[in-house]
This record gives sequence, C-alpha cells and structure tokens, in this order.
Amino acid sequence: MTDPSRLLAHLAAHLGAAHVLTDPVDLAPHLTETRGLRRGHTHAVVRPADTEGVAFVVRACAEAGVPVVAQGGNTGHVGGGLPQGGIVLSLARLNRLRAVDPVNASITVEAGMVLADVQAAASEAGMLFPLSLASEGSCRIGGNLSTNAGGTAVLAYGNARDLVLGLEVVLADGRVWNGLKGLRKDNAGYDLKHLFLGSEGTLGLITAAVLKLYPRPVSRAVAFVGLASAEAALALFRTLRAEAGPALTAFEYIVPFGLEIVLRHRAGARRPLAGAHAAYALVEVSTTRSDEEAGTLMEGLLARAQAAGLLADAALAASEAQANAFWDLRESLSEVQKAEGASIKHDVSVPLSRLPAFLAEATRACEAAMPGLRVCAFGHFGDGNIHFNLSQPVGMDRAAFLAAWERFNRIVHDIVAGLDGSIAAEHGVGLLKRDELARYADPVALDLMRSLKAALDPGNILNPGKVLNPGKVLNPGKVLNPGKVLNSGKVLPDGGAGAAASCGVSEASTKI
Amino acid sequence: MTDPSRLLAHLAAHLGAAHVLTDPVDLAPHLTETRGLRRGHTHAVVRPADTEGVAFVVRACAEAGVPVVAQGGNTGHVGGGLPQGGIVLSLARLNRLRAVDPVNASITVEAGMVLADVQAAASEAGMLFPLSLASEGSCRIGGNLSTNAGGTAVLAYGNARDLVLGLEVVLADGRVWNGLKGLRKDNAGYDLKHLFLGSEGTLGLITAAVLKLYPRPVSRAVAFVGLASAEAALALFRTLRAEAGPALTAFEYIVPFGLEIVLRHRAGARRPLAGAHAAYALVEVSTTRSDEEAGTLMEGLLARAQAAGLLADAALAASEAQANAFWDLRESLSEVQKAEGASIKHDVSVPLSRLPAFLAEATRACEAAMPGLRVCAFGHFGDGNIHFNLSQPVGMDRAAFLAAWERFNRIVHDIVAGLDGSIAAEHGVGLLKRDELARYADPVALDLMRSLKAALDPGNILNPGKVLNPGKVLNPGKVLNPGKVLNSGKVLPDGGAGAAASCGVSEASTKI
Repeated sequence: MTDPSRLLAHLAAHLGAAHVLTDPVDLAPHLTETRGLRRGHTHAVVRPADTEGVAFVVRACAEAGVPVVAQGGNTGHVGGGLPQGGIVLSLARLNRLRAVDPVNASITVEAGMVLADVQAAASEAGMLFPLSLASEGSCRIGGNLSTNAGGTAVLAYGNARDLVLGLEVVLADGRVWNGLKGLRKDNAGYDLKHLFLGSEGTLGLITAAVLKLYPRPVSRAVAFVGLASAEAALALFRTLRAEAGPALTAFEYIVPFGLEIVLRHRAGARRPLAGAHAAYALVEVSTTRSDEEAGTLMEGLLARAQAAGLLADAALAASEAQANAFWDLRESLSEVQKAEGASIKHDVSVPLSRLPAFLAEATRACEAAMPGLRVCAFGHFGDGNIHFNLSQPVGMDRAAFLAAWERFNRIVHDIVAGLDGSIAAEHGVGLLKRDELARYADPVALDLMRSLKAALDPGNILNPGKVLNPGKVLNPGKVLNPGKVLNSGKVLPDGGAGAAASCGVSEASTKI
Repeated sequence: MTDPSRLLAHLAAHLGAAHVLTDPVDLAPHLTETRGLRRGHTHAVVRPADTEGVAFVVRACAEAGVPVVAQGGNTGHVGGGLPQGGIVLSLARLNRLRAVDPVNASITVEAGMVLADVQAAASEAGMLFPLSLASEGSCRIGGNLSTNAGGTAVLAYGNARDLVLGLEVVLADGRVWNGLKGLRKDNAGYDLKHLFLGSEGTLGLITAAVLKLYPRPVSRAVAFVGLASAEAALALFRTLRAEAGPALTAFEYIVPFGLEIVLRHRAGARRPLAGAHAAYALVEVSTTRSDEEAGTLMEGLLARAQAAGLLADAALAASEAQANAFWDLRESLSEVQKAEGASIKHDVSVPLSRLPAFLAEATRACEAAMPGLRVCAFGHFGDGNIHFNLSQPVGMDRAAFLAAWERFNRIVHDIVAGLDGSIAAEHGVGLLKRDELARYADPVALDLMRSLKAALDPGNILNPGKVLNPGKVLNPGKVLNPGKVLNSGKVLPDGGAGAAASCGVSEASTKI
C-alpha cells in the first residue's frame, strides 16, 4: 500500500479524527525509543479507546494489508515497538482499572495502564503487585507483558509472565480472545496466554490482563555488601537463599568500576562502605509477617555470613531513606554510564552456577580485545542475569569504539552460548537482537517460532520483522502460507533493520 | 493402516524386539487407567531407551500415518493416555537423572523418572522439588509436565508448569527440540516450553526437563481446623495468607460428610477435633529458616485467628506422626469414597472470592436434583480448586446413579461457567472432558488451540482425538492442511470416545 489515505479515513471515521495522528510533530515521539537514536516511520499513530477499537483497527489493517505496531509507553530498548512503515497502534487510552479482587488476590487492568498506576491500585487494595523496573513511571503494563519484563523483583516473584492469570488479546484478524480468567488452576485445554506473553506484539495484541497480587510486605531491610570476588558473591547468595528462603527479595551485583562511576557522577551519592572490594552486592529481605522485623532477620543473616567468611564488609541501612539511597546506587548505574562515554551493552543470563565463570571469561576476553576498555557489569545476580556493559576507553573516539559493536557482541554472546545462557535475558529481541537470535537459537526452536507466527499471523500484519527474521524460513514445508509470511513488501525500505541496528548500538539493554 | 506388521518390524529392528510389546498380557496394563474402567486398544507398546529412540518411533509412525500415544506412569484420570488404536510409546525407560545443580537450584531429569525419585534426588542434593500428589510413587515426571499436574504444593510453589526451566521435546515429525536451558530469565524469542506443558502429548512428546529446585523447609506445622462455614474458611485463609505470606504452604478443605466417611472407612483414622463443625480445613506452614520454628509461627497465627473469631476449633499436630495423620485424613478421601458406592466427580476451579458461592450453589442444586445425594466436596481451597464429588444416595442402584452423570456435569459445570471458573482445574481434558471443553470454552480460544494443533502436528499423529475434538473446526480457513487434521481414519472404530466416556463416568477426577 503506497497510499494509506483510504485506510486512514476509514479509521478516522470510526475512532474520531482526533485519534488518527498524522502530523509529523505528533508522530515524532512514536518514532524513536527513549534515547532517540533509532528512527522508524509510520503512516499514522492511531489511538483507540477500548478493545473494540483495537479490534477495529487491526481488522481494517489486516484487510488493507498494512502492518500494525503496538506501542505502550514506548520505553523498550531493542526496537520492538519501532514502526518500519504501517500503523502505530497506541494502547495509551486503554488505561482503565477494570476490577480489583483482594480476596482472589487479582487485579484486572487494561494494557495502557502505567505500571506505577497498577502498583498503586494494588497498594490501595492492601496488596502488592511486585513487578518493578526503572521505567515504571512511564512504561505501560501491556508492554511489560508483551515483552515479559524482568526488573528487580524477579528473584522472589518471577518474570512478568509469571504474574499473569488471564489475558484479553486482539488477534491478527481482529477477533478478540477473551481469556480474562482469574484462576490459579486451569487445565482446560492449551495454555494460550503464554503464547502472547513475551511475543512482543508479533502474535496478538494484549488489551487487558488479570494479574496476581501478593500480600504486601510489612517490613524490609537493605544491606550493601563488599565481597572478595564473584565466587564469594555466589557463595553468599547460596547461603542467604537457603536461610532466608522466600524472604530474600533481591540480590543485585555491581563491579567496582560501576560503584566508582556512580559515586563520581550521581548527585548526592555516598560511598556505602569504607574500604574497597572486588565486588559488591545489594541484598534485600522483606517480610509480610507482622510478628517479625526484616532488620532483625537481616542482622542475623549477615552476622552468620560474616562469621563464615562469606563477606568482607556490610552496611545495613539504618532507615528507609538509607535503604533507598543504597537502591539508588544500583539503579542509577545505566544513567551514570553515559558520563563515561559510549557504551556497548549486553543483557545476558547464564545458569547461576556459571555466573562467576561468565564474568571472569567475558571480562578477560573484552579487556584483551581492546586495551583501556572498562567493563561495567551489574545486574540481577540472583536471576543469573547480568547487564554486561562496556564503557569506551578514556579518550577514545566515540564512533571508533561503537564500530566494535558487532565484534564485542560476538565475544560476549559466544561465551554466553558456550555456557548455555541467553543473549536476551529480560529486554527481548525486537529488531536489535533479531539476527543474533537467528544466529544463536536452536534451528528447531526457530522453526517452531516461525510456525507459530505463520499459524497466528498468516498475513504477517503484526509487528512484522521483529523477533524473527522473515527471510529465513528453514522448513518451509511446515509454514502456513509461506508466500504471506515472506510478505516484507509491506515494510517500507528506508529505516530498515540494518540501519536501526547500527544506529542503536549504544542503546541496547539500558533498561534495568 | 490395517496391517501394522511392517511398522512393528521396523521398530523392533531399531529398538530390539523385547521393546516392542504385542502380547495381550503385556498390552493390558497400558489399555486401562488406574481403576480399570475405560479400555483402549493398540497395535503395540514400544519402549525406547532414550530420546533418539523416541524420535525414531515418532518419525516412523509419522511416515506410516499411525498415531502415537505417550504414556508415563499411566496414572491419569481423564483418558489422556488411553490409546484408541496406533502405538503406545512408553517413556518408562527414559528414567535417568541427567544432572543436579544445587547452585543453580535445578535438576535435569528424563520424562520417565518417577516423581518420587525426582523428589528424592532433589532431597539428596539438599533441596526441595515441591511437586507432590497422591500418585507420586508411580506417576512419572513427563506425565506430570504434559498434564501440568497440580497437587498439594500449588499454593506456595505453583503448578507443574511453573516448576519448569527447560524442556527437551520430540516433535510430530520426529525432530528434537533441545530447550534444556536452566535459566531464570530468557526472552530470546517465543516461550516454547509452555506450548508443550499441559498439552497432554498432543503437540509434542516431552523427553526431558530442567526443573526448579527450592530451599528445603527445615520445619513445618500442620493444624486441623473446624469452621462455621465456607465463608469462614475463606476469611481464615485471607488472614493466614496476609500474615504468613509464603510460609503458608497448604490450605485444604473438607466438608463434614468427607471427614465422616474417612473416619468410617479409613483404618486407624482418628477424629481430629472433639466437636462437629460445618467445614474443616487442613492448614500447613513451613519455614526454610533455621532461626525459627514453624510450630511457634502456627501457634501465633491460630491464636490470633481464634481471638478474631475466624475459627471454631483447631488442633495443632504435636508430632510429625500426628501431622502425617492429619494429612492422611485429607489424602484418603478419594479412596474411602469408593466404600460409599458410585461417585460422579468434578475437578473444578473458580476465583477464590467466589468459592463459597460455588460450594453453596452447586451443593443446593445437586441435592435438589436427586434426593439423598451426598456431596463430598474437598480439595485445594487456597487454589480455588475443589473436587466436587457426588456420592450416590444410600441404597440406590449404582448404574441408575451413574446414568445421571451428564445431568450432574451440566448442573455443576454450568455453575462453574457462570462464576468464570474452569471445568478442568488440575486433571486435564483428555478424552473425558473433551466435549465439555468444546461446550464451555470460548470459541476463539478453541479455534486458536486447533490452529496450534494444526501448526505443530499437521498429520494429527500425536494423541489424536484428545483435548480437542478434531471433528469441529470452527474456522477452517485458519487451519493448516485441514484434510489431515480431520484424519480420524487412523483411529480404529471400537473403543472410541463415546464408549470411553460412558464407562469412565465414576472415575473422573479422582486424582488429588
């Protein structure tokens, strides 16, 4: 379709002209990700108000053969929501709280609700919705679910997909699947919700969800710990996990370079421990029980760990303000890295038992590949998930450093693959890691994914070209309508995958 | 295929003749479920030793157009593993423990490992594999995963699918998907494992899995509680959940008739509470923490609940033996029900907030439908999952009672559907609930399930006729190779779905 005017008029007649945006000024915020490096293009941004409206738009686009890219808060980092032609469907107006059921410990929300608003609604009902990440003030729950977001609460509560009881989804042909059940046990046929969770808007558009709520912790304690090595961090983690059980709600890791640049650039940041250590961890324990105090629990855990030689030093936050300050040291890492020049970032996971080996091997290999390179590794140690970020050598030319992006991807991802890890732990695949996925994934797995895409979106209307490279069908005999799957003619040629990947280099994996 | 001899010779040449069973005596245990009421038929039972052997069998059967029905411990109750022709593929020889990684808190097992052996291997490594159900001494983990088994530990640890990190699966064409990753975070493409978990061997055959392990509780406390009503049970549950958080590891429910027949028929059973109550609950709390004692925690919880008027009476087990005796009262319910004559059983779930309404409404409707009927409702209250079982009126003819099976299914399942519940909470669909699923499921959901079946098993080789009724394709345009999907000619006519359903009446949903 070269002239979308008939489609746009059709959409405007149904949604109202005010909700079919075509002015470049209105489109601009939808064409780049948070840091503005990649650029997409679109005919229009449409803003339906409800599920029926979303279904109408998808049906109209399917009939016209025009791609639909869903956007929530547009806070992703892998280009998953970036349009490459077609229509951007903003879920922002579907922002209603449909129901809260504190007895069932569930909440029913529309896809466009801002994550912080979901948390607040849970809190008002006296419960906890645990999903928490840096962009929670602007990201929207539909995006969190369609990317299976991770964040800082995964250790105790799981990934976004683990927090979902039911979904409402608009399918590629505009039909609506109403799977909004709030059940803890349901084996009535195949589990459809997991198909859409984490599929980055390529198999269906999530319009609403029933989410799990949890008892709200009444007390938490946060400690900043100095350690002799990554191996020591692992030993400490094991002990805390065994002793604290589900009360251990965070175990985050920071290398010395990371702490150093936070202290250098973050306004008001204060050194949490007197001495210098080879590694640092932020430890949090929480309790829902009114008969105990998390601080007392943490004191006992740390005292026993120190007596066992598992940690070098530890500071236990004496107040909620100090606890927040410790967390801020961890959470400002992505931001302060910018002050140290360009970065090449990796969002990887390995089995926890191999995490020290990964850190050692990847650090050694990257430092050997470029003298002066500074490894800024940090992240969700307890989940086996590290943001293995590389800061450029001091004084090096920014562009020259970024030109090494593919080389470092190869070094780091080869090590990850050798350790049976994942090259896309919590940020998804989108556009940026699509070809990396094609390189590292089991060919049978890739073929299964393509079969699912073909079965659920035979016209390749939903977010085409994301996650899977449509040009590489390994087993065409298994694919429904291969001619339609390969329908990349719907994607306008400029601003395609290659361009997006190369200009997005420094922005991969910055979400924490 | 009317003469399978060439296929069987081909299989025997590869697997060894000793592992291609055709003697009726050898076949017999594979043709009925535990209680022997339904009967299937098969050409042969084949017993490959490893994944390669499973792949060989599936490939050979796919080429010959012969259905394959996988069996693990054959402990199901909905006819999911019952052959209706074709080949039974026993996973029993794939019973190796491949790896234990206590640091990563994971264990890699083959599909044929008996659940109790998986539990034991975890325990030897100082960890807990929490999946626990009545048949754990004979059911096999591959069956637990392919049916997404529930059981008594769901409240704290989730269903079987929630305990899985990775899978190895033989696909319908004999290819092997190696998804045996042990990662807590992995967003590298679509999540394929959830497709196979709970699909009852209709989309692929699980041959191995990486499972999550948990810190082993060091202390547990069990109480038997007398309550004024189901509403009171719910109020007590809410309070315990809020106060104990993840330490609350079980909350099971029993109606007075249930306790009465256990005390009547179970050897050695002793009345746990002096008085009679309108409802009973078994409550368990566990702790992984060496610095506290579950008994002390439970005493505090019960004292506060009693002071708040939430419970009428409670007995706290004074020893491990007494704790086991309390659990035995709950776990022997299915067994003792047999002594009261024929049963019509339902395995349903509703949102927890609607559970008292369900119990009241369904009890009233069933009692009104047949004077003298005795409702034996019990189960996993905290999960919203009740085994809503009906014992025949005293003295009534057994067959006359069972003839009312469909009538009671309609009464109970209509109420469940009206409360947004599930007619198949933890036992799956198989053959027995296939037509009930077709009746109650959202048509769009059914169509999606059929699209998945068609995409992953276009030849309809894997466990045909289970879960989905292949004769009802609602949206044939979405289905790949509809001619093959409808290929029910592979199923021999005798012993088909109708016969199986009618003679399986009293055996639905007896697993707890």
